[in-house]
Amino acid sequence: VAVPERTEGVVAPPRLGIVGAGQLARMLCEAASALGLDTVVLAADRDDAATSVAGTVRIGSPMDPDALRGIADDCDVLTFDHELVDLDALSSLESKGHIVRPSPSALVVAVDKAVQRRRFAAAGLPVPRFVVLDGDATADRLALVAFADEVGVPVVKAARGGYDGHGVVVASSLDEAVDAAMSWRASGTDVVAEARVEFRAELAALLARRPDGETVSWRTVRTAQVDGVCAEVCVPGGLDDSTAEDAARLAVRVAEVCGVVGVLAVELFDAPQGLVVNEVALRPHNSGHWTIEGANTSQFENHLRAVLDLPLGDTSMRAAAVTTVNVFGSGSPIDGALARALEEPTAKVHLYGKSDRPGRKLGHVTVLGDDGAEVTSRAWRAAAALGTPVPAQIGVR
Amino acid sequence: VAVPERTEGVVAPPRLGIVGAGQLARMLCEAASALGLDTVVLAADRDDAATSVAGTVRIGSPMDPDALRGIADDCDVLTFDHELVDLDALSSLESKGHIVRPSPSALVVAVDKAVQRRRFAAAGLPVPRFVVLDGDATADRLALVAFADEVGVPVVKAARGGYDGHGVVVASSLDEAVDAAMSWRASGTDVVAEARVEFRAELAALLARRPDGETVSWRTVRTAQVDGVCAEVCVPGGLDDSTAEDAARLAVRVAEVCGVVGVLAVELFDAPQGLVVNEVALRPHNSGHWTIEGANTSQFENHLRAVLDLPLGDTSMRAAAVTTVNVFGSGSPIDGALARALEEPTAKVHLYGKSDRPGRKLGHVTVLGDDGAEVTSRAWRAAAALGTPVPAQIGVR
Repeated sequence: VAVPERTEGVVAPPRLGIVGAGQLARMLCEAASALGLDTVVLAADRDDAATSVAGTVRIGSPMDPDALRGIADDCDVLTFDHELVDLDALSSLESKGHIVRPSPSALVVAVDKAVQRRRFAAAGLPVPRFVVLDGDATADRLALVAFADEVGVPVVKAARGGYDGHGVVVASSLDEAVDAAMSWRASGTDVVAEARVEFRAELAALLARRPDGETVSWRTVRTAQVDGVCAEVCVPGGLDDSTAEDAARLAVRVAEVCGVVGVLAVELFDAPQGLVVNEVALRPHNSGHWTIEGANTSQFENHLRAVLDLPLGDTSMRAAAVTTVNVFGSGSPIDGALARALEEPTAKVHLYGKSDRPGRKLGHVTVLGDDGAEVTSRAWRAAAALGTPVPAQIGVR
Repeated sequence: VAVPERTEGVVAPPRLGIVGAGQLARMLCEAASALGLDTVVLAADRDDAATSVAGTVRIGSPMDPDALRGIADDCDVLTFDHELVDLDALSSLESKGHIVRPSPSALVVAVDKAVQRRRFAAAGLPVPRFVVLDGDATADRLALVAFADEVGVPVVKAARGGYDGHGVVVASSLDEAVDAAMSWRASGTDVVAEARVEFRAELAALLARRPDGETVSWRTVRTAQVDGVCAEVCVPGGLDDSTAEDAARLAVRVAEVCGVVGVLAVELFDAPQGLVVNEVALRPHNSGHWTIEGANTSQFENHLRAVLDLPLGDTSMRAAAVTTVNVFGSGSPIDGALARALEEPTAKVHLYGKSDRPGRKLGHVTVLGDDGAEVTSRAWRAAAALGTPVPAQIGVR
């Protein structure tokens, strides 16, 4: 390969704004630092995870139009750590010429599950049977009961405001579903009721997409949830190539329907009737943390590259098997835990600088290797040393 | 492998202080952030490379005892970005109970080349024949002329204050060597004159060492210098396993002689008479940047782990071949350079956030793959797109 003549030098790179300063923003800032990019975050609190590594920290609410305008004025491109944002304010900023990626017109499918299900169903994407509750109490109750008559006890979801299992109830009785739905309706959000999907496995497909529609996909992963929260991610996790590629193709269709710019994660059910879209995130996602070490380009780096309209990086795996296990707080931190975790020499430990509260997601551990069972075992060993409760279904392996 | 019972959680990690805030501190801070560690840097200037990613930035000179005491009081363990430090002040801090790693008693071999050559020679380590000039002008001149009579025109080095080829003259005549030596002597530093070593290749061996003496070594690399500054690092770079292992073993002896804690880089000549120690650095080193992506644990992460007395991470290579090429400034930055570099999808681009001046080291590019020639070519393509002058001896490959 011929080496080109030198003609140019490096200019000051663009300044990236990130709404929210949690662990995703922290890992975006780590990737931005490596690429020499300047960052500014909008943090709700001075102690948020990303505040120690962001170039500039602004304090304010992601629901406050003034705070959003402030960070938009202070950066070249605005992107997101989470979806709990004021879409109207973002649309207004976009109409005034600020670059917001993903656009609020795409982001709405992650902010509002009712909008998402309607848009996806209209586009012919495979979603569970659903009904949106957005009427008065009587009408909503009747609609839910009628829907349950058809599909059995449904899963109910708050259309807005949910995260990490919050805002989702997998009800064991119709009464439980009705109570949850009515409570959310009373708090002002629409509710989505869905047929429960019986599945063989839960998968997640991950891609990055540039403004011109160019996409790159990572290998589809298998995830395991405990109490509605992701506990482990295994790549390839025993998933056959054909299903993995189907999932990646489906995610590209989702990206096109949404008009995503940046990273898109699509959580899927691998069900007897085929792949079914469960949830989507228009940002780096917990199911993609394995890419930091396990792929040639991480989801964080490619999110930056996509939203800045730079060429996307190679997504090839760096090992035959990769497992990421999440680290959760025990609420009773004592000394020596990090040292014990690092006694597993292949463990790549990530901690987000958050204080330890029971059940709080504090970090993750990734292990690369040749054998899936081996790397999964090593990752759990390090996560357990960090205080993560080991679920019964994991511990018995 | 059995998963242990959960017994403990994560405590607040130690706070690491770094003297200096250049690109090495920046990459240390990136690694520290991933591990959830808190950092404070002592920066000479608010715009130094690490100031955007350090948890806390203190402004002050590394030669100022008050500034050193200030950062020592503000951290649990103190380490270094460079060797241009006040050793007496550090020794005083150590004697007062501050943890300084590496210790000033080890660091002196990197700070003062005269001390280093004498200590290494006394320990039987292979160094070039040398003489230290530390007398009056007449005695120094006579000693240098007498030494040149024995070994030919020597290489002369300022004992203190050099970096990146500065402070070293590979003289083409005795007059040139004498002029350089006398000029440094007049500025107050001792001078080392060394026999020029004819070598087949320049190598660098890299290891990390804990306080108890446990070490881990990375694969020895082959480096190529242009005008005294490292241009490219190739792993394994055609180096046979036997020479690579000899170099790694020699570096362990150097580490033991010095009492290193943290990362040690040993630059070596592969000469007909065997391996010869050229330079040492008691910190992460340019020849080890390939480990960020190319090894399972980077030199930055293992430096943190070593100085914090945490278990060291696995140093295995993640690919059969890795090349890192340094990015130098052209002094005439124009738009689009980063985008063009990223068009090479496998290139891992690192930029240090420094302004572009001709010849200034602005970043580096690493490529992993199966074939050495291929990854080297890809890395040079990306570095050239970033404005790096391509040396003639590289360009013609």
